[in-house]
Amino acid sequence: MISLGDGIVDFILDGVGQVFFMGTPLVGAIILIALYVNSKKAALFAVIGSIIGGVTAIALGIPLDTVYFGIYGFNSVLTSIALGDTFLEKGYKAYLIAAIGAFFTAFITASLIHVTSVFGLPVETSGFVLTTWIILFAAYKFFGYKLAGAGVPPKQRANILKKEYNSGEEPIKMHEFTLGGFIKLIFTGISQVFFQENYLTGIIMVVGLTLATISLKPFAFGIQYPIFFAGVTAFIGSLVGTLTGIALKADRTSILMGLYGFNGVLTALAVMGVFLGFFYSTEGFPGAPQNFIIMLIAVVLSSIVTAFIGSITSKWNLPTLTAPFVFSSWLIELSAKVFPNIIQIIATLNIH
Amino acid sequence: MISLGDGIVDFILDGVGQVFFMGTPLVGAIILIALYVNSKKAALFAVIGSIIGGVTAIALGIPLDTVYFGIYGFNSVLTSIALGDTFLEKGYKAYLIAAIGAFFTAFITASLIHVTSVFGLPVETSGFVLTTWIILFAAYKFFGYKLAGAGVPPKQRANILKKEYNSGEEPIKMHEFTLGGFIKLIFTGISQVFFQENYLTGIIMVVGLTLATISLKPFAFGIQYPIFFAGVTAFIGSLVGTLTGIALKADRTSILMGLYGFNGVLTALAVMGVFLGFFYSTEGFPGAPQNFIIMLIAVVLSSIVTAFIGSITSKWNLPTLTAPFVFSSWLIELSAKVFPNIIQIIATLNIH
Amino acid sequence: MISLGDGIVDFILDGVGQVFFMGTPLVGAIILIALYVNSKKAALFAVIGSIIGGVTAIALGIPLDTVYFGIYGFNSVLTSIALGDTFLEKGYKAYLIAAIGAFFTAFITASLIHVTSVFGLPVETSGFVLTTWIILFAAYKFFGYKLAGAGVPPKQRANILKKEYNSGEEPIKMHEFTLGGFIKLIFTGISQVFFQENYLTGIIMVVGLTLATISLKPFAFGIQYPIFFAGVTAFIGSLVGTLTGIALKADRTSILMGLYGFNGVLTALAVMGVFLGFFYSTEGFPGAPQNFIIMLIAVVLSSIVTAFIGSITSKWNLPTLTAPFVFSSWLIELSAKVFPNIIQIIATLNIH
Repeated sequence: MISLGDGIVDFILDGVGQVFFMGTPLVGAIILIALYVNSKKAALFAVIGSIIGGVTAIALGIPLDTVYFGIYGFNSVLTSIALGDTFLEKGYKAYLIAAIGAFFTAFITASLIHVTSVFGLPVETSGFVLTTWIILFAAYKFFGYKLAGAGVPPKQRANILKKEYNSGEEPIKMHEFTLGGFIKLIFTGISQVFFQENYLTGIIMVVGLTLATISLKPFAFGIQYPIFFAGVTAFIGSLVGTLTGIALKADRTSILMGLYGFNGVLTALAVMGVFLGFFYSTEGFPGAPQNFIIMLIAVVLSSIVTAFIGSITSKWNLPTLTAPFVFSSWLIELSAKVFPNIIQIIATLNIH
Repeated sequence: MISLGDGIVDFILDGVGQVFFMGTPLVGAIILIALYVNSKKAALFAVIGSIIGGVTAIALGIPLDTVYFGIYGFNSVLTSIALGDTFLEKGYKAYLIAAIGAFFTAFITASLIHVTSVFGLPVETSGFVLTTWIILFAAYKFFGYKLAGAGVPPKQRANILKKEYNSGEEPIKMHEFTLGGFIKLIFTGISQVFFQENYLTGIIMVVGLTLATISLKPFAFGIQYPIFFAGVTAFIGSLVGTLTGIALKADRTSILMGLYGFNGVLTALAVMGVFLGFFYSTEGFPGAPQNFIIMLIAVVLSSIVTAFIGSITSKWNLPTLTAPFVFSSWLIELSAKVFPNIIQIIATLNIH
Repeated sequence: MISLGDGIVDFILDGVGQVFFMGTPLVGAIILIALYVNSKKAALFAVIGSIIGGVTAIALGIPLDTVYFGIYGFNSVLTSIALGDTFLEKGYKAYLIAAIGAFFTAFITASLIHVTSVFGLPVETSGFVLTTWIILFAAYKFFGYKLAGAGVPPKQRANILKKEYNSGEEPIKMHEFTLGGFIKLIFTGISQVFFQENYLTGIIMVVGLTLATISLKPFAFGIQYPIFFAGVTAFIGSLVGTLTGIALKADRTSILMGLYGFNGVLTALAVMGVFLGFFYSTEGFPGAPQNFIIMLIAVVLSSIVTAFIGSITSKWNLPTLTAPFVFSSWLIELSAKVFPNIIQIIATLNIH
């Protein structure tokens, strides 16, 4: 048993790391550095979210082992960044709203853990998505806070194209990118998992994921949790997601912001690493090679679903958040319960 | 066993009382009086709904004991009032539509009883909400009936403010209320559970709830069902819901109509009384004191969810009905299945 | 056991026939003829969908017996026609999109088979509805393909009224129809199950359903599957659905296109034939006569739900597809788990 005094720092970091399905302090710490590089506030709100999510769960009786593994932190981390730093107007009130959001996220995540367990599904980031949508939708009725404006496009958007950036109607074509610019875009897609638009942030995250998977300590539930080459998997997810968006002629700005990449990143990590165990082994089982194809199908689906959910949420001027990831990975995971050739490895471990 | 001839009046009254989670003729009768004070038609449609809901359930084979306890009546009661008296254009057709609505509500409530039982949830007023939304949404496609206009604001809206009532854009501030006016508003919030805007109606309802809980007869399932001080609980729910709306700067008119109160009323009664059993005891168990805090959290959430659902439904010019109550109480009740420190008392009794 | 070489034609035809809940080559073949009469492409896309749906399921490990019975074909059949021939701009890309849609439909249908099995429900055409909505909604974000325009109204719309066809605002009245025209309309409603607007197509389908039910061979699961008089049932469904639309004054064009008929057709076949077994007998049980009334209630509900879902989807300029059928038949089927007097016959056979 862990006691409350033990490793309070670990507990905060694990909550951050679990966004990438990794409850290890190393990943959490590297993510915080990656966020800090782009936005000090994003890093701060990540820490605030992790603390509030975890403390709420402890107060409500969740065993410390589970909480310290970050299970009740990661949804609150995302809510805190989204509400405190990204989608609402900044100011002193941002702290209050982020805290309220992170608090309710713990409740709503618990609710969804019960609902998803009925279907044998992981909760993924659904707690974050639902809570943040509730509060952002509510913002239209509450004069107390407002949605943030679009802001000035980051300079980097200009640096990935041969010509100058424009937000025109024309869908983007592959030949418009410089090679270096396209690679930057793929890393930007990874940074968008935390609502950042910065390729450096993405590169640091990939480094962290790779370091973590080279030597990952056993976790609290007593089994190994290696998503080997998680860095490579994240890159493939962002790449395939973005290419799908370009092929289907999604709008220029969404592509250039990395918005067709980040749901692919999470989907690839979830399907390949956690759910299907491609590179994963509990008792010498090497994972199912065909699951690599399932992962690619899931990532393509996540890009189509990004456009689908975007068509709905943009009517309300709201972001899709990570809903496309949640929705498409649930669909693939549910189908695996019916299709015998999709081999599930740790679906019984209902963590996220 | 009850036979069909027994206590037909009880059966009608219990259906009305169950809207407040109380299947007793006393509460039902007092609610009808409270409705009559504001609108004779509302009382009439409540009776129509209770009869149709109950008779449909009996015809479809539900045991008389269950039907007589009002389980298949209360959703139809609300549908009947909403469609017959509140949200559609009045006229002779209102009776037909209310009857059709109450009839389908019995079916849809039964459907939702099966769905919610899978998650271990009570059905609450979800049957009413779904059926009424279906029919109101459908009204946009059917020329046969029309949504009611806004009508003239009741005089009482003027009487709760120091200055004259105006429906301006500015959110309301606490200092605009007279003390008496504010208390009237809280009772109005209670009357809005039945779509009435009348503080007298609310006061009579609180009296009924209080009388009923002082000495409540054992009910058909063989256990006591006292929500002690249900009147006080209803008042607290309306108060906290309204204060949350004011603090978050919800729009002036919604606040003054009591719309931020009524979902709080139902949430407070459901969470505190039925679900968490704060004042409740089956075998000498005194309920869990910390559940009072859970109730307050649930009521605050219900006000945020009121704005959330309102943002969606107002796009279609539709009312939120009691959806914020259903949604937020389900979330809290689901979380209780995961959080050990939220103690459920009668969650296994799947009544509503 | 069936081997892959066996009866490849049967497997394609069964997928088509299962749209009408009949996994027999005869029904499938007659439906293809019926489609061909109105649109060669519709017949072609039906075959494409059936092949892709079935092959995907086989590749993912579903036993051949199940696949050959058409269980993984019928949702893909509808998606393929809807995306390839009906709702998107035509052209060479239509084949690609129909194929992608039919492929993902197999996955999403499998997902929904798991979800619906939790509630004891058949999956019906929900896999088609969800996949097709995802792709049509996504079309608003993807410049690569476009929704089809309204096109020129088929001539037949003029031939069912005494006066000339006009698409005015006035709801249609019974006396505007010629008798022959009204009967044509009811058959047109049957053809709309496959998104065709042609009474001849509807008549051929009724003939096929009738022939099939006169002498239906036992199917792979080892029990008889006769929906006796399925042709009559389909006609009653279209008739009652259309009459409900007229009575509630739905818009003129929707009525004349048969859009208030086709969900009634499917609902009647599902509720009466598959679900409630009115005319059906496994071991000499004659079915429950009162279920005829339940079927009528379900069909009326499906028309109301057509307007309800239409109010939502028309905001996005999208079709309701068969969602009204899925939604209303699920509601009735769920209520049957609670209402003892609705007798379910083969609800345990989770086929669709």
